[in-house]
Parts: sequence; C-alpha cells; structure tokens
Amino acid sequence: MSDTIKYILDEDRMPKNWYNIAADLPEPLAPVIHPGTGQPIGPEDLAPLFPMALIMQEVSAEREIEIPEPVRDVYRQWRPSPLMRARRLEKALDTPARIFYKYEGVSPAGSHKPNTAIAQAFYNKEEGVRRLTTETGAGQWGSSISFAGALFDLEVDVYMVKVSYQQKPYRRALMETYGARCVASPSEETNSGRAILEQDPDSTGSLGIAISEAVEIAATNDDTKYSLGSVLNHVLTHQTIIGQEAIMQLEMADDYPDIVIGCAGGGSNFSGLAFPFLGEQFRGGKAVRAIAVEPSACPTLTQGRYAYDFGDTGHLTPLVKMHTLGSAFVPPGIHAGGLRYHGMAPLVSHLVELDAIEARAYDQTECFKAAVDFARAEGVVPAPESSHAVRGAIAEALACKEEGQSRSILFNLSGHGHFDMQAYTDYFSGQLEDVQYDKDKLNAALAELPEIAAE
Amino acid sequence: MSDTIKYILDEDRMPKNWYNIAADLPEPLAPVIHPGTGQPIGPEDLAPLFPMALIMQEVSAEREIEIPEPVRDVYRQWRPSPLMRARRLEKALDTPARIFYKYEGVSPAGSHKPNTAIAQAFYNKEEGVRRLTTETGAGQWGSSISFAGALFDLEVDVYMVKVSYQQKPYRRALMETYGARCVASPSEETNSGRAILEQDPDSTGSLGIAISEAVEIAATNDDTKYSLGSVLNHVLTHQTIIGQEAIMQLEMADDYPDIVIGCAGGGSNFSGLAFPFLGEQFRGGKAVRAIAVEPSACPTLTQGRYAYDFGDTGHLTPLVKMHTLGSAFVPPGIHAGGLRYHGMAPLVSHLVELDAIEARAYDQTECFKAAVDFARAEGVVPAPESSHAVRGAIAEALACKEEGQSRSILFNLSGHGHFDMQAYTDYFSGQLEDVQYDKDKLNAALAELPEIAAE
Repeated sequence: MSDTIKYILDEDRMPKNWYNIAADLPEPLAPVIHPGTGQPIGPEDLAPLFPMALIMQEVSAEREIEIPEPVRDVYRQWRPSPLMRARRLEKALDTPARIFYKYEGVSPAGSHKPNTAIAQAFYNKEEGVRRLTTETGAGQWGSSISFAGALFDLEVDVYMVKVSYQQKPYRRALMETYGARCVASPSEETNSGRAILEQDPDSTGSLGIAISEAVEIAATNDDTKYSLGSVLNHVLTHQTIIGQEAIMQLEMADDYPDIVIGCAGGGSNFSGLAFPFLGEQFRGGKAVRAIAVEPSACPTLTQGRYAYDFGDTGHLTPLVKMHTLGSAFVPPGIHAGGLRYHGMAPLVSHLVELDAIEARAYDQTECFKAAVDFARAEGVVPAPESSHAVRGAIAEALACKEEGQSRSILFNLSGHGHFDMQAYTDYFSGQLEDVQYDKDKLNAALAELPEIAAE
Repeated sequence: MSDTIKYILDEDRMPKNWYNIAADLPEPLAPVIHPGTGQPIGPEDLAPLFPMALIMQEVSAEREIEIPEPVRDVYRQWRPSPLMRARRLEKALDTPARIFYKYEGVSPAGSHKPNTAIAQAFYNKEEGVRRLTTETGAGQWGSSISFAGALFDLEVDVYMVKVSYQQKPYRRALMETYGARCVASPSEETNSGRAILEQDPDSTGSLGIAISEAVEIAATNDDTKYSLGSVLNHVLTHQTIIGQEAIMQLEMADDYPDIVIGCAGGGSNFSGLAFPFLGEQFRGGKAVRAIAVEPSACPTLTQGRYAYDFGDTGHLTPLVKMHTLGSAFVPPGIHAGGLRYHGMAPLVSHLVELDAIEARAYDQTECFKAAVDFARAEGVVPAPESSHAVRGAIAEALACKEEGQSRSILFNLSGHGHFDMQAYTDYFSGQLEDVQYDKDKLNAALAELPEIAAE
C-alpha cells in the first residue's frame, strides 16, 4: 500500500519566533479607526480590552516576534504538529498531485486555536488579569481559551452563540471540563444581550452579538480583559508557527507547495499556514497560489464589500477595513459555525485586494462529501470548518489529474470533527442542505455600513 | 511553569515485533475447551471464525511475532505514540511521584484499539476474507475496526450494544463515516438476536449478546470472519507495541516505572502496556507493580470466579478459563461501556492468579473526578474507560505524597473522551451515580457456569 507518510520535526527545531507579515507587505494595512472621532486609534484606546503586550504586537512592524519560553513550553505538548503526505488519498483520487496536510487536530483542544489561546492567556496573566471573556461559535475557540485558562489560572467566561449552545452541548461540556463558564448568547448579563433580547426574545444569537457581550464585560471590569480567537493581526501572527513548521517539514520531504489552502472564517487558520509562504514570496522566494476557502452561505471574501465596518453587532469595537457582509448580517445556520462571521481579518482582506490571495466559496454538502472521502482514506474525520480546505485541496488534486500535472498541494487540516458528528449524521441521513444566504438581507446589511466606508 | 514533557521516539525505532508473553509465563495457560467434547480445541476448530495467521498467533509460544510491513506502514501514521511526563498534574497534586502516561488517543480512531484492528484487517485481507463482523460496546473498538476496514477494503458489520447505539449516536456516525454498517444488538438479523428479542423485546443488549450475533454471522458465511477487540491472546499481543515503546521512551527519560497501571475490561489495554514490563521481570529484570483497574460495577477480577466460561451470552464460543461474573451476568449501565464485560482475558486472569498482577476496583464518580483533575492539568480529556487508570495513578501519586516517596508511575491513557462527553455533562450536573451490581443476579450467573468449571 502507498501509505500516508508523517514528517515529524524535532522539538528543538520548533520556531522560536512568530512571523509578522506586516514587515513584508507590499503596501501597508489601512489604519484602525475610532468610531467616535473618525481618527486612527492608538494603543491606549485598546488598553481596556487587551494587555499592552498584545496591543504592541497588533501594531508591530517587526518581522519576528519572540515566542515567550513559557508559551513554547506548553506548545511542546503537541508541537511541532505533524505534516502528513496523504498518499492514501492521492491513490483514492488517482491523482498525480502530491497532497500534504498540516494536522493541527493533535492539540488537546483539537484544533489550531490553542496556538494563540496559550499566548493570549500568558500575556494576560503576566499583566495581572484575573478573568478573560470571549465569544465562541462552533466552540473550537471557546474550548481552546478554556484550556489555556486552566493552565494559566485565569477565569474564563465564554459567550456561546445560543444556537450552538443548544445544538452542541458536548462542546459546552468540554469547556466546563476545563473549568470555564459557558453562557448562551444573547444573555441577560450584558446591555448588549438585553437589547437584543428585548427586540427578539427568541434570538438564536450570532458571533457578532456574542462579541459585543464579551467586549462589554471586559470594558466595564478592571480585572477582566477580552480575548479574540481570530481576525486581529496578533492572532494571525500567533498562528504562523503552523506555516513555519510546514516549510521545514516540506524540506524534509524535499518539496515545496505550488498551492497552499486553508478555510477562512475570521482568517487565522488560513493565515497561520499561508503567511510564512507568502512572506517567502514577498521577499523574492518562490511564489505560491494561496487559496482561502469560505462557505458559500457566508461568502465574506467572494461576495462581501471591502470597507470599514464594526467587528461586532453592538458596535462596541473600533472600525477596521475588511471584507464584510455588514455587521447586521446574520449568516444562515451551517455546520461550520466557526466560519459564520460577517467580517474577515484585515490582513487577509488586504492581501486579497492586492491579488496575493485567491478566494473561493463552496457549499456545505460538497465539503462534507470531501470530508468523508478524506476520512475513509486517511482515517481522520475533519471538522466542518476544515472540510472546506479538504474540498479545496481535492478540487486542485482533481485538476492536476485532468491536466496530467503533478503539483504540490498543502492544506491546513485545522481540527478534527469529533464534536461535530451531528453534522455527519445529518449528511448521511440526507438532512444536510445547501442553505443560501438571503440576498435582500445582505444588501440591507451592506447599506448599513458606517459612513466612513464611503471615504 | 514545570511543564508537561513529551518523549517522542524516532519512527525507525518503532518495534518490529509484537511481544508474546506466553514465551515467558512462569506457568502455562490453561487450554481452551470445546464445549461439545470437553476436550482442548485445535486450530481447525477456530478456522470458521479467524484467519489461520491469527489462530497461529493465538497458540504461539514464540516470544516475538513479526509485525508485517504493511501494518507497520499504517502504524506510522500515529506511532510511536507519545509518552508524556505529567508534570503539571504532579504539581497540581503536589506529589513527589513521577507520573508518566502513554497517550494512545492520537490514533485516528482515538484509542489504542487500532493497534490490533489494523493487524486483524491485514491478516483477514491476506486470506481473502470479504467481510468482518464484530461487536462493540462504547464504540472504541467498533470505530477502530471500521477505520481498519476502510484502509484494507473490507466490509465491516458492527453489532453495537443497543443501549450504546441509542445513547451514542456520534460513535455510530464515526463508524458510518469510515463506511461500516452499524446494527443495534440484539437484532433481527441472527438466531441469537431473535432468541433474545423473543424473551425480551425491550432488551438493551450486552457485549455478550452482541458477540453471539457477530460470531453467528461469521460462522455461517464463508466469506466472513469474526474480529474481537480484546480478551484473546493475539489481541493482547498486538497491543504490546505500547509497552515496548514506553520502555524505550522511559530510557530517554532516564527512568523505569515502579508501578504500571491500565484499566481492564477485556484486558487488552492493560496488557499492551504492562506485558512488556512483566516480560522483563519474568526474565530476571526489575520487578514492577502492575495494577489492573476495573469498575466496581463490573468487578470481574476482584469479585468474579476463576473458572471456565463462555465468552458470549449465546454460548457459541469455546470455553476459556478466566475470571468471570458468569456469561449470563449483565453489568449495570456505566459510562465506561468498554469495561462492561463479564469475563477477562485468560492471560490477565492467569497472571492475577499467579500474583504477578494486582487488581483494583473504583466507582465511576471518583474516576470522573480524577479525569476532570487530569484534564484541567494536562489538557487531555480521558475516555471513561481510561479514567479508571487515571484514578489509579492519582491514588498512587497521593500515596507517594503521604509517604514522602518519589516513585515512578506509568499509566495507559488509552483513549480520549470526545465521544463520551454526555458522561461529563452528567457528572457536572450531579446526575452521575455510583451504580452497584445486583449481588443476587451475580450469584445466579455464577451458579450457571458450565460444568467443566468444577473440574
């Protein structure tokens, strides 16, 4: 049998720095704007929400940001994560392509999210924070920050999108096992939550609403800070350990990717894999096709507008320039809850505008079909989010077959689907549908973009 | 922070042979008896159920059994599995003990079970088998043989204990994702199943019943063989790769265990870790305390009788000498479904009789408490079965603290609990109880042991 090959990097080769793509951007990022003044914000504006160490990373132009030793100590429990050559999948597809995947599901929380959760918990603890608030959709991020909170002795309050809270009791159980408190959002605990419930007592919530709740608690409590699992520059930077390891592991395989693929909700998982390769390219190295894959039900990059918008529904956050469906847009319920966000990381949006990244959208049933094909060949059951990357990789591998070309394809298998098996049950029973977003509601949400967007 | 340390063995040091403890036993195992003749069975008696290669391993006296290269190729996807020094747990317990765990949850199916599933699928495929039948309780074994079937292109029919089938739809979804067919047992598909349903249409099933169904289908179809996930000698032998790797990894840590701990249902997980250490001891090496931990609700080793008994409820299997609660005994419903078996591996039973192994029973709530303590320190959520080993290890670590002794404790974290989160939900909500077995029913089941038991 042509079998799966695993490339393990020695622990002493684990990267000592995160890679900050800001240093290599062909054009700088648009500034973050204060919604009250319309002027660029400064570090002090973010201080109620984040520890200063993270704020400085958010605005840093240094190419390398040192990973603190205590963070590396925790990383070593599962990092370097394995890079796999999916030879059984190649054989099943009968493709001349070389398919590699970086497997981040080996972390205790089961996804790539602890790469930043551990770092964020460390810096918050260092600055004397007692409690973290955050939001979660599908629960990958909530579980990861709960895990990190347990290690660094921080209280963690997770505002979980109500529909997920009800549909995914086992994600909640995982967070509680780590000692976190999990609250269905919108909740009665915040002004933002109460305002939503007053308008719509049956609201099933959204990531945008849950962010408002978590931000509000952090902004109004001195001992509490807010933690975000994607979108922000420093979060994407923390994830670059993935791509840096992959570069070294592909060297072991004597290969280099032609195509790098990740799913994109907020953008951190795609960026974590792709940015170190894009950095090589920007510095004159080999060019790669970097493909961000999103759900067609929440097509931020492929159908959204590149404009200034709020990160949350309650408009408590600063304004960032990004691809957005409008902060009022509530995406339809798909199983890839982690990809149901109205916005996209400013860095990813910027690179799409610069044509450095391709974006592509797939329906959920074709992603689940790809995930099942992958599981039967490789044994690992992908998270619904990661199944979008699997779908993208299989599409490229089949294109290679059609063209008789052997390209090297690398994708980020960012997490396992053990907590998402209801989705697979629905898929097998034929109950999984390709839900479409409401175009009128999208247009309405885009019409509500803040004024500065016209600037 | 005193952090968790991971010991990774190079792939080229992965064992090339399984270790067969039969070669080193101080006294030989009692023969397997044909229930019709009362005489020891021969290999040909087992041929309807198993491929000859596995039957020869079952009766082998060779110390080393070569692992076929195609099996090693698949193993390499996740093996050698990591050995971890649980320093964060040590710190949380404030113990001078050195706690190590071998983590088998890194396999695609999430437990140690693929170690034998892959081997069994390989040998069956080699002998031209088209379909495998098997039983599963909690579903760890069913998922593993389904995974193996997908890789070796074998149909897999899993008879799943009905109560688990209903309570664990996500385990079923995992098996179906791998392409297997999962049937609630007792079913209408077999004489054994129909006989049970005639007596009790509401039967929730048991491992003993499910084994009868799977054995019956294999015995009556030429292209179908039966696959068992524990109990038998060859299954235990396949698991010894765990302990062999652990010995090399502890050498890297410059340590050797004083105490080796595994949970015990059928016995394969405990044996996989402990037998290589017991082999060292039998050949004159350092002695270890090997502790098999079972649930007090199904106390085969601590309350059962050492006698000849059937492996299944329908009395289709040969008679083996083992600790048994009687094949008619149906253990109460506990969350560690993989430990709910009336019997115990003959090899483990024999070694308990020889005083080479200690046995201990714990209630499920204390096991879940230990599992939560472990998860908060180490990040990994243990399977309910493995939580018994965690409980045993923590008890020994606390004994070290009390005595001011630094002993080296090694346990098998045989699987993760991602498919068992309902148990954690029940634990947190206070709905998890310490169920007791019915002593009258145990006595009745023991009174029904076959006649040969008196010999």
